[in-house]
Amino acid sequence: MPLTSHHRLVLPADSNHHGTLYAGSLLRLALEAGYATAWRHCGPQANLVLRRVLNLECLRPVPTGTVIEIQGAVLHRARAYLVAGLLGTPLAAGERPWLEALLGFAQVDESGRPDDLPSDCDVDEIADREEWRRLTQRLAKLLKLR
Amino acid sequence: MPLTSHHRLVLPADSNHHGTLYAGSLLRLALEAGYATAWRHCGPQANLVLRRVLNLECLRPVPTGTVIEIQGAVLHRARAYLVAGLLGTPLAAGERPWLEALLGFAQVDESGRPDDLPSDCDVDEIADREEWRRLTQRLAKLLKLR
Amino acid sequence: MPLTSHHRLVLPADSNHHGTLYAGSLLRLALEAGYATAWRHCGPQANLVLRRVLNLECLRPVPTGTVIEIQGAVLHRARAYLVAGLLGTPLAAGERPWLEALLGFAQVDESGRPDDLPSDCDVDEIADREEWRRLTQRLAKLLKLR
Amino acid sequence: MPLTSHHRLVLPADSNHHGTLYAGSLLRLALEAGYATAWRHCGPQANLVLRRVLNLECLRPVPTGTVIEIQGAVLHRARAYLVAGLLGTPLAAGERPWLEALLGFAQVDESGRPDDLPSDCDVDEIADREEWRRLTQRLAKLLKLR
Amino acid sequence: MPLTSHHRLVLPADSNHHGTLYAGSLLRLALEAGYATAWRHCGPQANLVLRRVLNLECLRPVPTGTVIEIQGAVLHRARAYLVAGLLGTPLAAGERPWLEALLGFAQVDESGRPDDLPSDCDVDEIADREEWRRLTQRLAKLLKLR
Amino acid sequence: MPLTSHHRLVLPADSNHHGTLYAGSLLRLALEAGYATAWRHCGPQANLVLRRVLNLECLRPVPTGTVIEIQGAVLHRARAYLVAGLLGTPLAAGERPWLEALLGFAQVDESGRPDDLPSDCDVDEIADREEWRRLTQRLAKLLKLR
Repeated sequence: MPLTSHHRLVLPADSNHHGTLYAGSLLRLALEAGYATAWRHCGPQANLVLRRVLNLECLRPVPTGTVIEIQGAVLHRARAYLVAGLLGTPLAAGERPWLEALLGFAQVDESGRPDDLPSDCDVDEIADREEWRRLTQRLAKLLKLR
Repeated sequence: MPLTSHHRLVLPADSNHHGTLYAGSLLRLALEAGYATAWRHCGPQANLVLRRVLNLECLRPVPTGTVIEIQGAVLHRARAYLVAGLLGTPLAAGERPWLEALLGFAQVDESGRPDDLPSDCDVDEIADREEWRRLTQRLAKLLKLR
Repeated sequence: MPLTSHHRLVLPADSNHHGTLYAGSLLRLALEAGYATAWRHCGPQANLVLRRVLNLECLRPVPTGTVIEIQGAVLHRARAYLVAGLLGTPLAAGERPWLEALLGFAQVDESGRPDDLPSDCDVDEIADREEWRRLTQRLAKLLKLR
Repeated sequence: MPLTSHHRLVLPADSNHHGTLYAGSLLRLALEAGYATAWRHCGPQANLVLRRVLNLECLRPVPTGTVIEIQGAVLHRARAYLVAGLLGTPLAAGERPWLEALLGFAQVDESGRPDDLPSDCDVDEIADREEWRRLTQRLAKLLKLR
Repeated sequence: MPLTSHHRLVLPADSNHHGTLYAGSLLRLALEAGYATAWRHCGPQANLVLRRVLNLECLRPVPTGTVIEIQGAVLHRARAYLVAGLLGTPLAAGERPWLEALLGFAQVDESGRPDDLPSDCDVDEIADREEWRRLTQRLAKLLKLR
Repeated sequence: MPLTSHHRLVLPADSNHHGTLYAGSLLRLALEAGYATAWRHCGPQANLVLRRVLNLECLRPVPTGTVIEIQGAVLHRARAYLVAGLLGTPLAAGERPWLEALLGFAQVDESGRPDDLPSDCDVDEIADREEWRRLTQRLAKLLKLR
C-alpha cells in the first residue's frame, strides 16, 4: 500500500502566541494522521485505539498559514497491534521533516479487549528514502527496549 | 518542589464514540499538564517549546464524565532542556495509573534558538512511590538510547 | 493528477443530537477537503480563497464513529479560478455517495485581488465513474447559469 | 414574519492567517443562521436537517474583530422542504452584502424520513429591497435547474 | 429598542455527560448574547469589554438537542458602562426562564481606558413582563450594594 | 485544605482581536477552575452543577501568551450547596488580581434534585491575605441580599 498523505492549513486557532503551530494542536493532528493511516491499512473492520506514542519529534516550528502535509505508513504489525510512522513533509526544499512520529494502535473488540487485526496484509512498502529508513531504525531500537 | 496536579472533567466534546476520552484530546491534555509542570518549575522567565514525546502510554480507557487528575514532576534537567513526567491518578482504588508520559521541553530565546533554563533548582523531589520510580527508570533507558 | 482523499473519524464533538454528523461540521470538513484538493492542484504558490459553494448535497446521515472518506478533484479551471468537486465515499457497499459538492476557489495576490493560478496543468483526470460524471454534468449546468 | 437577525463577533479562533473570517467558520456560521431562520419559521415542532446548499457566495473578506450581522428569511416552501435565504449585512455604508446564501432544509420524522412541515404559514415577507429580490430570482433559476 | 433575541441548537459538543448544556458552554453563550445586546444598543462605534457578571442564575437544565432562545435588553446605562439583562425563554409553556443574567460592559478607547458610550439613547424599553421586572429589581439591589 | 491552583497558557484560540483573553473564554476557564475546586473539596462522590455566578470581576486584560494561574477555595457551605471563590494571581509583582469570582454549585442526585454534600469537612482555610478577605466579605453581603 502506498503512503497515506494528510494536508491541512494551519490556522490561528491551531497556533501559539509565537505564530507557529501549537504543540497541543500538533499532537492532535499527528494522532488524526496516524489513526487514518492505521485505519486505511486495516479496512472497515478496524476498531483501533491508541496504545502509546513510542516517539514523537518536533523538529521545526511551523508558521501559521502553512499548508502542512503529514505522510504515514504502517511500519510494524503484531497480532493485535500495529505501529504507524509519520513524517511531516519538509516545509522548504532541502529541509528535513518538521515532524517524526511512531504511534502504536491496538485492535480491540466490543468490550475493549485486544483482538486480531482484521486484514493479513504486510506492512506498508515505503519508498526507499533516507528519512523513512531512519524512522524504521528508531522503531527497531524502541521495540527492543520495552 | 511538590508534584503539580491538574483536574479536568471529561466532556462529550473530549470523547470518542465509545464514550471514553478520545486519544486526540488526551494528547492535548497531557501537553497542557506537561507544559504547566515545566512552567511552574522554571518560573515566569520560562519560554518553553515541546521538543519531543519520549513516551506516552494509554493504559486504561477513561469514561466520559470522569474528573481526571494528572500529576506532574520535572524528572530530568539539562542546560536548555527538561523532561516532565506525568501520571494519570488511578480512576479507582487499587488500579494503576491510566496515563504515563515523558515530555521533553526546550527553553528557547526570542529567535527560537536553545537558551539556558532560567532557574537553577534541582529536579522535583517525587514521593518515593512505585509508579514514579518506574517512570524514572524508563526515562533513564530512553535517554541512553538516543 | 489522481483524486485526493481525506479520511476522518466522526466524533461526538462533530455530531448533532441524533448521533449523526452535524451539518455545521460537515460544511467545515467539506471546505477543508476542497481546499486541500485545490492546494495540491496548484502547489505551494497557491493563495486560495473560497469564492462560492456552487452546490452541496447531503445525501445520507453519517453515524458518529464512522471513518469518512472524502475524495476530491479539480473539475474546472479558469485564469484565476477553479472548481473542486467532492464525493463522500459510500458508507456501505452498493450505496450512493453521502456527500456531493462543488466549491469554487479564487487565487488572490497579497492585497486580495484576483491573480493568475500558478500552475498551468489541466483539470484532474477523474476515473470514468458514474458519480463523477454526474457531478461534472451538474457543474456544466451551473456554470452556464450564472 | 420579519427577518431574523444574527450577530456575532469574529474572533481570532474564527479567522485565517490573513486576519479575516476563515471560510470553514463562515460556512458553520451560515448554517447556524439558516437553521435558526428555518426553526423560527416552523416553531418547536421543527425537526430539520440540511439537505443542500443551493448557492453560497463569499463576496468580501470580513476582518477579525468585526461584529457581523446575518439576516435570514424563508424564501420557498414545499410540503416537507424549505429554503432559507441569508444576507450578510454590508460591513460599511454603501457596500454590498459580504455573504449571500440559499440553504435547503428538510423536515424529517423520528426515523429520518421526510415529514410534513409543521406550520402552514406563508414564506416570510421580505422588505422590498434590491438584494433580497436578487436572491429570490437566483433561487427561482436554481429551483428550475434541478 | 426591542428585545434582542438569540437562537442556538444545543449540540453534544456543548453538553456535559448528563446530556444537558454544560455550564462552561452556557457561560460562553450568555456572554455572546449579552455582547450582541450591548453592541446593538451602541451601534458600530461600540468598543465594549466585559467588566463583570453581576449575577447569573442557572434555573433549569437544558437538554441536548433543544433550540434555545436568549432574549436581551440593556437595563442600565452610565457614562461609560452599561448592564445587559438576559432571560432564557422557557423551554415549555408555563415554565420559568432557564437562565437569568446581568452582565456589565464598559466602553473603552484604543488604549483600553474607559470611554463615553457612543449613542445617547435610553435604556431599552422592556415589555412589562413579570420576569423582566424581577431582573430589574435584582439589578437595582446589586447596583446599590457595590 | 490548601488552595487549589490552575495554570493555563492563553492561546490565540482563547483571545479577542485586541490580543487579550476573550471574555467568553475567561468565563469557561473560571467555571473549570471553580468546578475543580469544588470537586476536590467534595471528593469522588461529588455530583455538582453550577447554580449561579454570584459575582465575577474582570479587573485587567490578560495578554495572549501569558501563563495564567487561578487559585480557588471553598468559602461557604450549606447542606447541598457550596460557593467556590477564585482569584487570578496578579500578572506582575505589585498588581492586584486580574480576576475575582464567586461561583455557587449544588450537589444533585441522579434525577437532578438537591442532595447532601458528601464530605463533612469545613470550608477551606485560606491564607490570611487581604484579597481573600475582601472576596469573603463580598460573599457575606451577597448571601444576605438574596
